[in-house]
Amino acid sequence: MKTAVAVMLGVEYPILAFSHCRDVVAAVTNAGGFGVLGAVAHTPQQLEIDLTWIDEHVGGKPYGVDLLLPQKYEGAEEGGLDREALRHLLPAEQQAFVDDIMVRYGVPELDDEQRRAISRMGGMNVSPKGYEPLLAVAFEHPIRLIASALGPPPAALIERAHADDVLVAALAGTREHALRHKEIGVDIVVAQGTEGGGHTGEVATMVLVPEVVDAVAPIPVLAAGGIGNGRQVAAAMALGAQGVWCGSVWLTTEEAETLPVIKEKYLAARSKDTVRSRSITGKPARMLKTSWTEEWERTDGPGPLGMPLQPLLVSEAQVRINRSASTPGSGAQELATYFVGQVVGQMNTTRRAGQVVLDMVNEYADVVVRFAEEAETA
Amino acid sequence: MKTAVAVMLGVEYPILAFSHCRDVVAAVTNAGGFGVLGAVAHTPQQLEIDLTWIDEHVGGKPYGVDLLLPQKYEGAEEGGLDREALRHLLPAEQQAFVDDIMVRYGVPELDDEQRRAISRMGGMNVSPKGYEPLLAVAFEHPIRLIASALGPPPAALIERAHADDVLVAALAGTREHALRHKEIGVDIVVAQGTEGGGHTGEVATMVLVPEVVDAVAPIPVLAAGGIGNGRQVAAAMALGAQGVWCGSVWLTTEEAETLPVIKEKYLAARSKDTVRSRSITGKPARMLKTSWTEEWERTDGPGPLGMPLQPLLVSEAQVRINRSASTPGSGAQELATYFVGQVVGQMNTTRRAGQVVLDMVNEYADVVVRFAEEAETA
Repeated sequence: MKTAVAVMLGVEYPILAFSHCRDVVAAVTNAGGFGVLGAVAHTPQQLEIDLTWIDEHVGGKPYGVDLLLPQKYEGAEEGGLDREALRHLLPAEQQAFVDDIMVRYGVPELDDEQRRAISRMGGMNVSPKGYEPLLAVAFEHPIRLIASALGPPPAALIERAHADDVLVAALAGTREHALRHKEIGVDIVVAQGTEGGGHTGEVATMVLVPEVVDAVAPIPVLAAGGIGNGRQVAAAMALGAQGVWCGSVWLTTEEAETLPVIKEKYLAARSKDTVRSRSITGKPARMLKTSWTEEWERTDGPGPLGMPLQPLLVSEAQVRINRSASTPGSGAQELATYFVGQVVGQMNTTRRAGQVVLDMVNEYADVVVRFAEEAETA
Repeated sequence: MKTAVAVMLGVEYPILAFSHCRDVVAAVTNAGGFGVLGAVAHTPQQLEIDLTWIDEHVGGKPYGVDLLLPQKYEGAEEGGLDREALRHLLPAEQQAFVDDIMVRYGVPELDDEQRRAISRMGGMNVSPKGYEPLLAVAFEHPIRLIASALGPPPAALIERAHADDVLVAALAGTREHALRHKEIGVDIVVAQGTEGGGHTGEVATMVLVPEVVDAVAPIPVLAAGGIGNGRQVAAAMALGAQGVWCGSVWLTTEEAETLPVIKEKYLAARSKDTVRSRSITGKPARMLKTSWTEEWERTDGPGPLGMPLQPLLVSEAQVRINRSASTPGSGAQELATYFVGQVVGQMNTTRRAGQVVLDMVNEYADVVVRFAEEAETA
């Protein structure tokens, strides 16, 4: 597994772990992989706290930060894009639909204090106004990588990163996206198949990875989507990837701060229990199929808005659902969902994140040995 | 590649080629792979002719036959299920919708002779009345394999096949389907990911193959969906498959009887240009995204029927479209579609079918050597 990417990143295993949870990031980095903190919903203050904590726990080993840096978003022409300005763009029909869901499923309202707590949360910082302060914090820490999970990162960011000896990675769901990333000068392309959790395209990893590898060569490619065990890591390497980018598999680890009710759903779910839905972020993202995703697919419903309006529309509803979802048999429990890929079907036990890395490495080694034996007898 | 499946099938390479075209079947078998003739739309007479031709061209090398053997279908209670009886079940709304598409796209009508020719065609022989005569023909030839592309094959068929030293394979799109196949006693499970052409489920090959391998062990598994080159074959083997089942990649070979206008569309298409659509068979099947599939996805349209009503509804329209699709700029050209998987994005040249097998084997060997070198340096 000592690929060019492993050397670039300075790790033993080119296994990258995307997680919103600093404990997972540190655990994977400490196990010889590379943790990447998903920081899109952080406030700058929270990010400062988390990165300081990571620095104190990884002893100089490398890690990264992931943000959503789309070049286009609704309301961009309004300049400010602060949440209050955006709120005026929300159509009444969709607002009424969300309210109606809350009523029909009997989801309790928030009290004033909880509502104030939400307003202090980071939300989705997908505008320059949102992510610039986060970048400022990140660059003050010894990060080794900045990843952009949506669209090609702005050229100025790449320059700034390279000046600071920070690598830039960008996710791609199509060959065309990958070519745009190459053109703009990213260091690593993450080819993410449709089976992945969160924002995904429609092309599967098995098809996407080789075509992206061929398209962006000699830029190294990480495979994402459908990677949760060592056989899948080996398959990714067979396809020409130099490493893997995993997100879902950490969500059921001991360190993950996954909501207990969601964690239980993950542990019970089959691979066919996910769906690509625009119902949370406004862009197609794979998540658990629940009554929430079904409501937004109703042909007699208004359907979801785009990004960043949809997250603004549903963020309070999501908090309401999650706060009450632990009540057995409640409508909130039924609605509760979160991002996860099709590997959810193989996430049936809770392990420590470092153990997940070691299990992947060992199973990968088994496959390598199997192929080596075949080479000998051939 | 000398896996247990290769030994069972008596082939050099466990590369199975599904094709409706006897030339492809024979070419793949002669190249050391294993050709499987898709015979669901054959008449018994056509099947007799094709299997005799194959026997004359493969010199005793092994091949198989693929049928659709669903255990459930609409109209089953009507017993007969002949096409005229079924035709009375077609709703007027959908019939009017098809007529409207033909008018709006200016697709010429058939003359009486052409219409008579269609009525002599096999159609979709998915009822016992339809497939029993085909099985009778198949068992008169030295077939090595019967494959069922939809649902677990009837128990009686498995007994009959085994008595005749014929292996039975069945396609599965979920772990649950695969377990049903195991229970009923199939010899080989084909785990087909969503990226495959034709009838597919929603779970991607990268996720489906390892979970099916683990679920049905020790029954061997072939990987299908997204397999069109040797890196993908190696990835399938890394996931635990003992071989691969490919359908799309043969459609642009020199031997394939693919309609020229469709072949051109395949050669030009990108991996993201396919869609799972119920518009041809009534069950979700992956095909080229064209105006035809978009018409059936319209929210103001009636949507497709089930199987076997939808194929009955659209078969004449499909013939009309294909007969006129070679006219550049015509509505028929715009509508024309056919089954294909996401590997269509890598099908950019026309090769001989035997060459495709050899290219796969060589590229597979490259990956094996790459892994073997890694094992040495580790």
